[in-house]
Amino acid sequence: MKVNGRQFRTIWPTPDRRAVQIIDQTRLPHTFVTRTLESCADAERAIREMQVRGAPLIGVAAAYGVALAMQASASQMALKNSCVSLVGTRPTAVNLRWAVERMQSHLTLVAEEDRAEAAWQEAGRIAEEDVDISRRIGRHGARLIEELHQRKGAPVDILTHCNAGWLAAVDHGTALAPVYHAFDSGIPVHVWVDETRPRNQGASLTAWELGQHGVPHTVIVDNAGGHLMQHGQVDIAIVGCDRVTARGDVCNKIGTYLKALAAHDNGVPFYVALPTPTIDWRLEDGVKEIPIEKRSPEEVTHITGIDGNGDVRTVQLTPAGTEVENYGFDVTPARLITGLITERGVVAADAAAMQTLRD
Amino acid sequence: MKVNGRQFRTIWPTPDRRAVQIIDQTRLPHTFVTRTLESCADAERAIREMQVRGAPLIGVAAAYGVALAMQASASQMALKNSCVSLVGTRPTAVNLRWAVERMQSHLTLVAEEDRAEAAWQEAGRIAEEDVDISRRIGRHGARLIEELHQRKGAPVDILTHCNAGWLAAVDHGTALAPVYHAFDSGIPVHVWVDETRPRNQGASLTAWELGQHGVPHTVIVDNAGGHLMQHGQVDIAIVGCDRVTARGDVCNKIGTYLKALAAHDNGVPFYVALPTPTIDWRLEDGVKEIPIEKRSPEEVTHITGIDGNGDVRTVQLTPAGTEVENYGFDVTPARLITGLITERGVVAADAAAMQTLRD
Repeated sequence: MKVNGRQFRTIWPTPDRRAVQIIDQTRLPHTFVTRTLESCADAERAIREMQVRGAPLIGVAAAYGVALAMQASASQMALKNSCVSLVGTRPTAVNLRWAVERMQSHLTLVAEEDRAEAAWQEAGRIAEEDVDISRRIGRHGARLIEELHQRKGAPVDILTHCNAGWLAAVDHGTALAPVYHAFDSGIPVHVWVDETRPRNQGASLTAWELGQHGVPHTVIVDNAGGHLMQHGQVDIAIVGCDRVTARGDVCNKIGTYLKALAAHDNGVPFYVALPTPTIDWRLEDGVKEIPIEKRSPEEVTHITGIDGNGDVRTVQLTPAGTEVENYGFDVTPARLITGLITERGVVAADAAAMQTLRD
Repeated sequence: MKVNGRQFRTIWPTPDRRAVQIIDQTRLPHTFVTRTLESCADAERAIREMQVRGAPLIGVAAAYGVALAMQASASQMALKNSCVSLVGTRPTAVNLRWAVERMQSHLTLVAEEDRAEAAWQEAGRIAEEDVDISRRIGRHGARLIEELHQRKGAPVDILTHCNAGWLAAVDHGTALAPVYHAFDSGIPVHVWVDETRPRNQGASLTAWELGQHGVPHTVIVDNAGGHLMQHGQVDIAIVGCDRVTARGDVCNKIGTYLKALAAHDNGVPFYVALPTPTIDWRLEDGVKEIPIEKRSPEEVTHITGIDGNGDVRTVQLTPAGTEVENYGFDVTPARLITGLITERGVVAADAAAMQTLRD
């Protein structure tokens, strides 16, 4: 997608394939900085410090981390050590573990002298596959937006929560892939961007990436979506997700459930965009079975922005010593979800319809 | 209610009745400062700059403003001028207009030499009536909390949105009056405090006043309430309101509707606390008939807190030039409301039941 008029991905190898470049997402939205990762340790730091974030992107960054490790030493021991330490950077990230295990099982079968080259190729394939999945999600989802546009004859108003855009993947994203596909095809769209407290990924990352690509959008507080839906100002809601159960319950950023309730109450279609590997076929009842991570209270009590001089500053919002609970995600029951937008098409959020997504 | 262990109201006359003191709410939660209003102009400034806020408190502050004006000059012209300029400080505040009109019609009938004394007395009566209304709301609402405690045998978890506590009134408040009454009667309670973006009245004012009075509470982001209700962590929700229609639709701080939807979806009782003059008997369908004020985008793009040195600072959260819409309120349909807690008792939110509240 575009930044300052130029095409970018979130991660790409240097032309000589000795290093990898990334966008440092901790500096967004106020500063656009790219960084060069020259070693596996660089990749680990970038993941741990959230310079790269978003499930698909973390997986790809870890795969490139293995390639950087193999370039320094391609021994079986070096392979094993790099995989272990990469997985340890974000222990709960399912995609990261999947990508590292794929690299490890592939490279174990390759002769030591060919491993560095094979590792670059495999990491590249993982990245391209991710871009391909995003493109397909974009194509399938854009049809829904196009139908709404034909019916409405005016720009389609899309509400999204958190950041499931290209910054969370390698390119295009998940929830925003249909938006970009529609916009690039000339369908007029406008996006309502939930700021997404406490980490404000909407107000910072989603607003930034939509703005850079030229997509019309408006930031709102998380409290406002229900009011907009009551007044016919939202045609469709599209969000991403972290995990989906076999019957279609969706775990996503805290607050998603409230927007799904409002969409249901006002007859607004509510879609979830996801790559099919996000489906956890072992789970049924998401509210009961998915453990919800509690995160640091500082995410609620403190917030970071820029002051009048453009300097990044953190301020405290609550009285000193205030108790805080900070749940990272919630679960939206399948009954509130109109459909799942996947790389294999759009299906209803129920066990029977989802069978078609199972290999 | 208590501040640093001492009883305070939000506004009180000095012992010599030559001036009025207030808590400067713009400095909360980080600094507790009282200010002395010595003239009508001081009162106007305090209202305009939101050193005093909350519908009941604004009304009382304006009434005292008239008394301060009469002290300087008790002529018919001075009375009229002070009333006009006080109403102009917050043109949409219904309570302010009501209090000023009551002062004006009362004082017009009083001889000029008795007006200053009569004004002090009438302003004091308005303040006492407000405290009395809050106390009654507290008593009626506390019964609901007590019943929940008897059923549960553990502290009652109450969720509230925004600030409808004693800081918004003269004492006790509306939504928090039942909480204080229950707490002071020895019923164990715990309050979930929505931070209430964009102005964060929950994270700053509600957390501060509950903390000062010693009531156990936990601040959460506005996104979290649905998740808590899904997991049985909320026994009752109580909010305040700005306007209620004759059939019980409730206009309150933006985001109230989303919490009411979640309460309804999870069988959590959802109550609205209000003085009966908040009911606008001319209106029926709140979503269609109540105009929703749009406020400054800066409330969303910027936020204020204290930095590591304890200095108050404002930081910008969104990318430069981001479009923002900032709706101040939303409307919760009566079908989602379990009951209205008023100074005259608890009634269902429907036209028939509400007839008993009509004089």
